[in-house]
Amino acid sequence: MKKLLKGGTVVSGGGSVLADVVLDGEKVAAVGLPRDMEELAGVDAQVVDVSGCLLFPGFIDAHTHFDLHVAGTVTADDFETGTRAAIRGGTTSIIDFGTQYPGESLAQGLANWHEKADGKCYCDYGFHMSITDWNPEVSREVQDMMDAGVTSFKLYMTYDTQVDDETIFSILRRLKEVHGITGVHCENSGMIAALQAEAKAAGHMGVSSHPATRPAAAEAEAIGRLLRLAQVVDIPVVVVHLTCKEGYDVIMEARRRGQKVYVETCPQYLLMDDSLYKLPGMEGAKYVCAPPLRKKEDQECLWQGLAAGQIQTVSTDHCSFTTEQKALGKDDFTKIPGGMPGVETRGTLLYTYGVDAGRITKEQMCRVLSENPARLYGMYPQKGVIAPGSDGDIVVLRPGVEDVITAENQLSSTDYAPLEGTKLTARIERVFLRGREVVKDGKVAEEKTGRFVKRGEYALEA
Amino acid sequence: MKKLLKGGTVVSGGGSVLADVVLDGEKVAAVGLPRDMEELAGVDAQVVDVSGCLLFPGFIDAHTHFDLHVAGTVTADDFETGTRAAIRGGTTSIIDFGTQYPGESLAQGLANWHEKADGKCYCDYGFHMSITDWNPEVSREVQDMMDAGVTSFKLYMTYDTQVDDETIFSILRRLKEVHGITGVHCENSGMIAALQAEAKAAGHMGVSSHPATRPAAAEAEAIGRLLRLAQVVDIPVVVVHLTCKEGYDVIMEARRRGQKVYVETCPQYLLMDDSLYKLPGMEGAKYVCAPPLRKKEDQECLWQGLAAGQIQTVSTDHCSFTTEQKALGKDDFTKIPGGMPGVETRGTLLYTYGVDAGRITKEQMCRVLSENPARLYGMYPQKGVIAPGSDGDIVVLRPGVEDVITAENQLSSTDYAPLEGTKLTARIERVFLRGREVVKDGKVAEEKTGRFVKRGEYALEA
Amino acid sequence: MKKLLKGGTVVSGGGSVLADVVLDGEKVAAVGLPRDMEELAGVDAQVVDVSGCLLFPGFIDAHTHFDLHVAGTVTADDFETGTRAAIRGGTTSIIDFGTQYPGESLAQGLANWHEKADGKCYCDYGFHMSITDWNPEVSREVQDMMDAGVTSFKLYMTYDTQVDDETIFSILRRLKEVHGITGVHCENSGMIAALQAEAKAAGHMGVSSHPATRPAAAEAEAIGRLLRLAQVVDIPVVVVHLTCKEGYDVIMEARRRGQKVYVETCPQYLLMDDSLYKLPGMEGAKYVCAPPLRKKEDQECLWQGLAAGQIQTVSTDHCSFTTEQKALGKDDFTKIPGGMPGVETRGTLLYTYGVDAGRITKEQMCRVLSENPARLYGMYPQKGVIAPGSDGDIVVLRPGVEDVITAENQLSSTDYAPLEGTKLTARIERVFLRGREVVKDGKVAEEKTGRFVKRGEYALEA
Amino acid sequence: MKKLLKGGTVVSGGGSVLADVVLDGEKVAAVGLPRDMEELAGVDAQVVDVSGCLLFPGFIDAHTHFDLHVAGTVTADDFETGTRAAIRGGTTSIIDFGTQYPGESLAQGLANWHEKADGKCYCDYGFHMSITDWNPEVSREVQDMMDAGVTSFKLYMTYDTQVDDETIFSILRRLKEVHGITGVHCENSGMIAALQAEAKAAGHMGVSSHPATRPAAAEAEAIGRLLRLAQVVDIPVVVVHLTCKEGYDVIMEARRRGQKVYVETCPQYLLMDDSLYKLPGMEGAKYVCAPPLRKKEDQECLWQGLAAGQIQTVSTDHCSFTTEQKALGKDDFTKIPGGMPGVETRGTLLYTYGVDAGRITKEQMCRVLSENPARLYGMYPQKGVIAPGSDGDIVVLRPGVEDVITAENQLSSTDYAPLEGTKLTARIERVFLRGREVVKDGKVAEEKTGRFVKRGEYALEA
Repeated sequence: MKKLLKGGTVVSGGGSVLADVVLDGEKVAAVGLPRDMEELAGVDAQVVDVSGCLLFPGFIDAHTHFDLHVAGTVTADDFETGTRAAIRGGTTSIIDFGTQYPGESLAQGLANWHEKADGKCYCDYGFHMSITDWNPEVSREVQDMMDAGVTSFKLYMTYDTQVDDETIFSILRRLKEVHGITGVHCENSGMIAALQAEAKAAGHMGVSSHPATRPAAAEAEAIGRLLRLAQVVDIPVVVVHLTCKEGYDVIMEARRRGQKVYVETCPQYLLMDDSLYKLPGMEGAKYVCAPPLRKKEDQECLWQGLAAGQIQTVSTDHCSFTTEQKALGKDDFTKIPGGMPGVETRGTLLYTYGVDAGRITKEQMCRVLSENPARLYGMYPQKGVIAPGSDGDIVVLRPGVEDVITAENQLSSTDYAPLEGTKLTARIERVFLRGREVVKDGKVAEEKTGRFVKRGEYALEA
Repeated sequence: MKKLLKGGTVVSGGGSVLADVVLDGEKVAAVGLPRDMEELAGVDAQVVDVSGCLLFPGFIDAHTHFDLHVAGTVTADDFETGTRAAIRGGTTSIIDFGTQYPGESLAQGLANWHEKADGKCYCDYGFHMSITDWNPEVSREVQDMMDAGVTSFKLYMTYDTQVDDETIFSILRRLKEVHGITGVHCENSGMIAALQAEAKAAGHMGVSSHPATRPAAAEAEAIGRLLRLAQVVDIPVVVVHLTCKEGYDVIMEARRRGQKVYVETCPQYLLMDDSLYKLPGMEGAKYVCAPPLRKKEDQECLWQGLAAGQIQTVSTDHCSFTTEQKALGKDDFTKIPGGMPGVETRGTLLYTYGVDAGRITKEQMCRVLSENPARLYGMYPQKGVIAPGSDGDIVVLRPGVEDVITAENQLSSTDYAPLEGTKLTARIERVFLRGREVVKDGKVAEEKTGRFVKRGEYALEA
Repeated sequence: MKKLLKGGTVVSGGGSVLADVVLDGEKVAAVGLPRDMEELAGVDAQVVDVSGCLLFPGFIDAHTHFDLHVAGTVTADDFETGTRAAIRGGTTSIIDFGTQYPGESLAQGLANWHEKADGKCYCDYGFHMSITDWNPEVSREVQDMMDAGVTSFKLYMTYDTQVDDETIFSILRRLKEVHGITGVHCENSGMIAALQAEAKAAGHMGVSSHPATRPAAAEAEAIGRLLRLAQVVDIPVVVVHLTCKEGYDVIMEARRRGQKVYVETCPQYLLMDDSLYKLPGMEGAKYVCAPPLRKKEDQECLWQGLAAGQIQTVSTDHCSFTTEQKALGKDDFTKIPGGMPGVETRGTLLYTYGVDAGRITKEQMCRVLSENPARLYGMYPQKGVIAPGSDGDIVVLRPGVEDVITAENQLSSTDYAPLEGTKLTARIERVFLRGREVVKDGKVAEEKTGRFVKRGEYALEA
Repeated sequence: MKKLLKGGTVVSGGGSVLADVVLDGEKVAAVGLPRDMEELAGVDAQVVDVSGCLLFPGFIDAHTHFDLHVAGTVTADDFETGTRAAIRGGTTSIIDFGTQYPGESLAQGLANWHEKADGKCYCDYGFHMSITDWNPEVSREVQDMMDAGVTSFKLYMTYDTQVDDETIFSILRRLKEVHGITGVHCENSGMIAALQAEAKAAGHMGVSSHPATRPAAAEAEAIGRLLRLAQVVDIPVVVVHLTCKEGYDVIMEARRRGQKVYVETCPQYLLMDDSLYKLPGMEGAKYVCAPPLRKKEDQECLWQGLAAGQIQTVSTDHCSFTTEQKALGKDDFTKIPGGMPGVETRGTLLYTYGVDAGRITKEQMCRVLSENPARLYGMYPQKGVIAPGSDGDIVVLRPGVEDVITAENQLSSTDYAPLEGTKLTARIERVFLRGREVVKDGKVAEEKTGRFVKRGEYALEA
C-alpha cells in the first residue's frame, strides 16, 4: 500500500515546492502535482494530510556518541535511548563513532560498535571509524572499512585518543588512496596540558578552569595545523564542531589558498556561551564539553558562516551524562565527563533560531541537516533528499506552533536539559523512516526499526 | 497529452537522481520511479527516451544584449537570432537589459525593449532595467517596474551610461525599500579615461591598448567602491562579469566583513586570456569586450571560485558583432564595438571544461546555469528546477559525444566564433520549453514560442 | 658662541643615548661624550643644563591650516598665533597647505600663502600645494613647485576642492615624473552627499548628523580607490588623517599586494571618540572635523598601528575656530566650520598617552613626530634628527611632571580646548630653533624667527 | 690617542649624515662637523680618510653555528676561523647558539660554549641558549642565564633537539616572567618525518628529496603554531630564517590580530632558489640547509618584506661543511650535514643586491644588519649605532667597486663558496672593533681581540 503525503511543502537545498509525495514501500515513488499524485497513489493509498507543514528529507546527525565509555563512566544514552530521542527529533539517520582502541584492529572496533548498536536503533545508523593506533595492518584495514560502508573516519588531536602529526599525515595519505574522508577534533593538546597544569598548580580546580584552559587559540591552532597537513597531502578534511571566529578565519584563509575544507558546527555553539561556566557550584558542569562554549561574537560568526554557506553541516556531538556523572569532576574540572545531549532538539532549534529568526532559510536548514551530511558522508541520494528512489525518510515539521524544551519531556536519559525553558516555534509532528510512520503526533510510534547504512564515498563539492 | 521523459538522470543543485519525468501541458507533473511514472503518464503519453542523458532544468542566461545600439552600430543579433541561438544551446530563459536612456522614463525604456522582443523570441525572456538618468520620478517608477515583473536593475560605473557614486547610493537605498536587486558593471571610468588619453597621446591606437587601458585594478577598484556603498545601505548587490583575481579578493574581503554579494562570471573569462589581443591586425578585435580578457591565473581563480561556490552564476554577456563591425575601430581601439557571442555554447563549454575536466560537478553546473539565476532573479520555482509545478523547461544533454565549435554551424549572426575549433564532449540533444520540444536532435524545431516572464523578488541566500 | 646642552638623553628613531650636544650658530656641531663636548664647546660656551630631560629633534607638524578661509569664515589662528602656539608645543617646523583655487595658477596659490606666512612665523614653515584645478599649464607648474622647494601636494576627494578620479590619476602620473608626493583627504563625496541629503530631508540638522553622514566606510572606500589609482601609476601616496580600522585594513591589504603607502593620523583620532557628538546643544560642534571622530576600537587600532610602525606620522590637522564660529552651523550641521586646534599639545599628549602609557616608545614618538615627517617631506637631515650639520632644532622635554590642558593657558586663538582638563605627565621646557632658544621655561622667548624651508624629494622607505 | 674618521657618510637606521667620527679608546667619542671634529680629535689624532665611504655601525650576525657537532661530524668553521671570516665581512659581533644537550644544565651548556669560544674570537660574541631538555631546575636557571647576559634563547620544532608544544608553551611562560626572548626554528617535524619515510620507501635517496620532504607548508604550519602558543602566553617571539611567502603570510595574519613578531631571514633565501637541488651528483648537497631554499617568488616576497620593514633582521645561519662532509649523505639525503657558510659576504651581498639594486635603502640595510639585531638582542646602544658612548664598531664600506665571490679568497674553512662567481659592487675596506682597526684594506689586521658581550633585555618595538 502506498502512502500519499498531501498538501505539504517539499523542501530541498535548492528550493521549496508545493507538491505531494507518494511513498511506495520503503521508497519515495514520486513527487508531483496533487491531482497526479492522487491518481498515482491509487484509491487504496493511505492519505496523510500534511498541509501547512514543511517536508524535510530525514535529518542526519553525523556526530553522536552513544554507549561510550569515557572518563571512567559511560554516556547516559545508549543506542536505544539515544536513537529514540533522535527519531522523535526528526533525525532518521545517525553516524556514531566506532572506535579502534589501542591494540585493537579496525575490524574489532567496528564489531564492538555493531554489537552496541545492532537491533537497538530507532533510526538508521552508520559508523565513522576513530583511528587511535596506526600501523601497516591498520592501514590495510582502511580499505576493508570502505568496503564495509564505513567510509569516513575520525581523528583526535587531543585526549588520550590523540594521534600525532606524522600519523595524521600518513592517515590522510592513505585516505586519499581509498577516497575516504576524515573528521578531526581540533585542539592543541600541548597548550591545553600546559594550561591545565598551571590551573592545577594555582589551585583553580573549578568549572571555570575548563574554558580557561581550552582557549579558542588552541582550537584555531589545531585547525591550522590540520589544514597544512591536508594541503600537502592534497585532500579535503572535515573540521568537526567548529566553535569560534578564530578557527573560522583560519579555515577561510585555507580556502583562499584553494583548499577544500568541510565544516561542522553544533547547536550548543550557536546558542549558548561561556557565561554559563560561571554558574555556581556544579551547575556550570552541565555545559562542559570540548571545545568549550565560546563568546557571543563567536555565535554570530557561526550563524553568518551558515548563512554564507561556509559551514556545511550542523550535528549535535550528543554525548550525554547525568548531573550525578557530571559531579565526578567536582574537585577537579578535568574529571568532568564532557558533553551534552542534543539529538532531540536540533531540528526545532535550528528552525526557531535559524529560519524563524531570519538568520538562514529553510533551504539552508535542509542543506545543513540533510542534504549536505548525506552527500558528505556518501548516503546521497538514498538519504538527504525527497526524490524518487530515495528512502522514504521524511520529517513533517509544523511551523508556527509554540513549544518549550524541558528535561521532563525529553527522551534522552539525562536528568537535565541544557536549554531548559527555551521556546520553540515549530513542532515535529510526524517522521517517516523508510516509508514507515515512526513518529506520530510527536510520539514515537514504532520500535527499533533502524538499520545499518552502508555508505559510499563522500561527494559534496563545497 | 502528457510526455514521459524516460531513463535520464535528473540533475539539481543538490544532487542527481535516476528518475523519470512526466510533463503535463506546460508543467512538470511529477518526478518519480520509472514504473510509477509510466503508470502516471498513461498509455497515450508521448514517451521520450532520454536514457544516458542528463536532464538539466532549462538554462537561464541573465546577461544578454540583443538588438542593442552601441558604438554607432547595432548588435549583430536581435531577439530573434539571439534567442534562436540561445534555445539551441539549452537556454530556455534569457534576461536582457532594458535601458532607460537619458531623458526617458523607465516605462519608456521598458516599452522600447518589449517592442524589440515581443513576438520574436525562441525562448522565454525577461528584462533587467538599466537606469542611467536618476530623478524623483524615476525613483517612483522603480516600484512600477517591480510590479511589472522587472525586479532587477543594472548600473554602469563606466561608459556613457554611467552613474556616479551619489546616484548609485540613492538607487541602492530605493532598491532596499522595494526589495529589488541590481547588477553592476564595475570599472573605474576615470582611471580608464586617463589611460585611454595617455595611449592616444602616445599614438597607441591598436587593439592591444584595449586591455592596457582597462587593467584589473580598475575593475577591482570599482567593485570595492560598489561594495562600500552597498555596505552602508545594507543591501546585497550583484557583481556582473567578474574577470580577475584582484576583484575576487575584494569580494572575499567584503564577505569577510559580513556582506552579501552575488557574483557572475562568463565563459570568455574562464576560457580565454589576453594573449589574444596580440594577434595581428584586427584579429584581436574579435575578443574585445569590457572588462577585457585577463591572465591565465585569473581564469584559475574564477574556476576555483565556481568550485567553492563563491561565484553564483555563469552568464554570457552575449553582445555580438561581425568582423566588419569590429573593423570600425581599426584606427582607434576605443571605437571597436565591445562584446562577443556566447549564448549558443555556454552549456556545452561549461560541461566540457568544467564538469568533464573535473573542475566542477554537474550539480554545480546546474546551480550556476539554472538554479541560482532562477533564485537570484525571482523565477524560482517556476524556472531553475525540474519539480512538480515548475515550467517544463528541460535540457537533455548527452555526455560523451564529440563536437566542435565552428562559426559555420552557429546560429548567431556573427561571422566568427571566438572559440572556433574548440572541442566539446557533450551535445544538447533536446530542449523542452514549457513542455514543448523546441529543440530536437540538436536542431531548433519550433518557432518563437518564447514568452515574457514576470519575475518576483530575489531569493538566493549565498 | 656655542651652546652646550648637557646631561640630556638624545632621542632618535633608532634609539636613545646619553650624550651632550654642541650647537654652533644655527647648526648642531656635534653629539658626543660629556668630557669631549665640554672641551669642544669651549670655555665661553653657553651651558644649558638639560639633565633629566629628553632631547627630541624639533617636532614637525605636516598638517596645519592657518589663516584659511573656509565655510564663509576664516580660521581663528593665522600664521602668527598658530605658529606661536606650535613652537611652545615643541613644533619647530610646520607644513601648511598652500592652495590653488579654481582659476589660479600654482604660482599664484603659492604667492598667496607666502603672503599669509612670510614674516609672521614663530617656527620654520613650508607648504604643501593643494591642487584643485588641473590642466596642462598647471601640470607644467608642478616642476616649478618642486624647484621652489614645495615638493609635496594635497588632493581632496571630498569638499568643493575635490578632484575626480581621472584627475587624481593624471596628477599621480605627473608626480611620478618629478618625484613628488601627495597627501590625500580620503572620503567618498558621493556617499556623503547622499547621506547629507537624506539627513536634511529627514530634518536631522543637528551635530549628530555630522558623524552619521560621514561613516568610516566612506573613508575606507576613498582610501581603497586612491590606492588602486596609485597602484596602476606605481607611486606611493600619503593617506592623511586616518581615523578608523576599516581604512587601516584597506591600507594593510594594499601593502600585502606590495604597495608603498604612508599613513598619518592625528591626536584627536587617538584620544577622542564620537560620543562627544552627543553632547547637548552646540557643545558637540567643538569636535566637528572631517573625517569625524570614530569609536574606541578605532582608537585602539590606530595606537596599534603606531606601535607596529604601520602609521608613519602624527600631525594635528590644526584648523581652529571659536565657539562663536562653530555656532554658524547651529541650524545646519553642514555649516559648522570643521576643525580643531592641536599644535600646542601634540607632543605632550603623545608622550603622556603614548610613551608614558606604554603604547609606544619614545623612539617611536621621535619617528612619528620628527624623523618620519622630515624624511617623508624632504627635510632630512636638515630637520628630523639631532646630528652634526642638522639644524639646531631641539625640544627639551621633561618627563615626570604634572600639567593639565586648559583653554585659559593656551596660545591658540580659540576660546575652548577640545581636551580641556586632560592631564599631562611631561612638559616642554625649552625649544631651540636653529640654535636659538625660542622657548624658555615653557614660555615663548623669541618673536617670529621662523623661516621658509625649501624642501627636497621624499625619502622615507616604509 | 684618538682616531678621526674623516669624510665618510655615517649611516643609521633613521638616515645618513655627512659627518666625521671621533673614536676615543674603545668608544665613539663624538659625531660632528668636520672642523669641530678635527679640533676635538686633537693634533695627535690618527686621521683615517674614509671619504667616499659609508660608515655602518658594526654588523651583527645573530645566527651562527661555529664548532658545532652535528650529523656525526663537526662544522668546518670553529670560532677562530668563523669569526675571522666574520670580521673581514664587517661583522663585529656574532651571537652563536650555546646548546643545552639532554641531561645537561643550562649552565653546563653555556660553559661548554664559553670553552669553545673564549680566547679564539676575532669579533665580539654572545650566546643564545638552545633549550632541549626542560624541567623545573632548568626553568630556574633561565634567570641565571639572563643574569649572565645570555638573554635570548632558541627552540627547535624539528630535529632531535626539538621540543613539543607543551614545552614551548611553558618556556614562553617562563620567558615572559624574566623578559627573555626566544628565536624558533619552525618546521613541522611530523610532516617531514612522514615525507622522509615516503621518499625512502620509494627509493628517492638523492638531494632533490631534501626540498621535497621539507615543503613551505611545513614551515608555515610551524610558524602558525608557534604564534598561537605565543598569542596565548602574550609574548613576542622571533621567527628565525624565514624562507617563504606562505610563512610570511602567516606572520602578517598574526600581526593583523595584534601580535608582535620579529622575523629574521638570511642571504641564501634572498639570493638562491631550489633549482640548485637539481644539480647533478652531490653538487646540490652544497646547498642543503633547513629550511631549504625555495622559489623565486619566495625571494621576491622576502625582499618586499625587508623593504616594507616587516622583516627585522638578516643573519647568516652560517653552518659550514666541506664538500667531503657533504658527501656523508651521498646515499641518503637525510645524512647530508645541513648548512652553508655566509658570514663573510652578508654585508656586501646585501649592499649589492639590496641597496645597489634599489630594493632597500642603505638605512634599511643598517637596520637589518646592525640597529635591529642590537636592539632585539639587548646590545643597544653599546652596539648597533655610531653614537657617542657606543662601542667603536664601525664598518667602512666603499661602494662602487667591483668584486667577486670565490672560494679561493674566502677565509671560511670550506672548500666551496655557495655563490662562487657572484659579482659584488662594494668592498669592506676597514673594520673597527671597539676602536681598533682590525681589518685594513680588506685584510684581517688584528688577532682574536673579540670579547664576550653581556647582553640586556630585548628592546625592539616593531
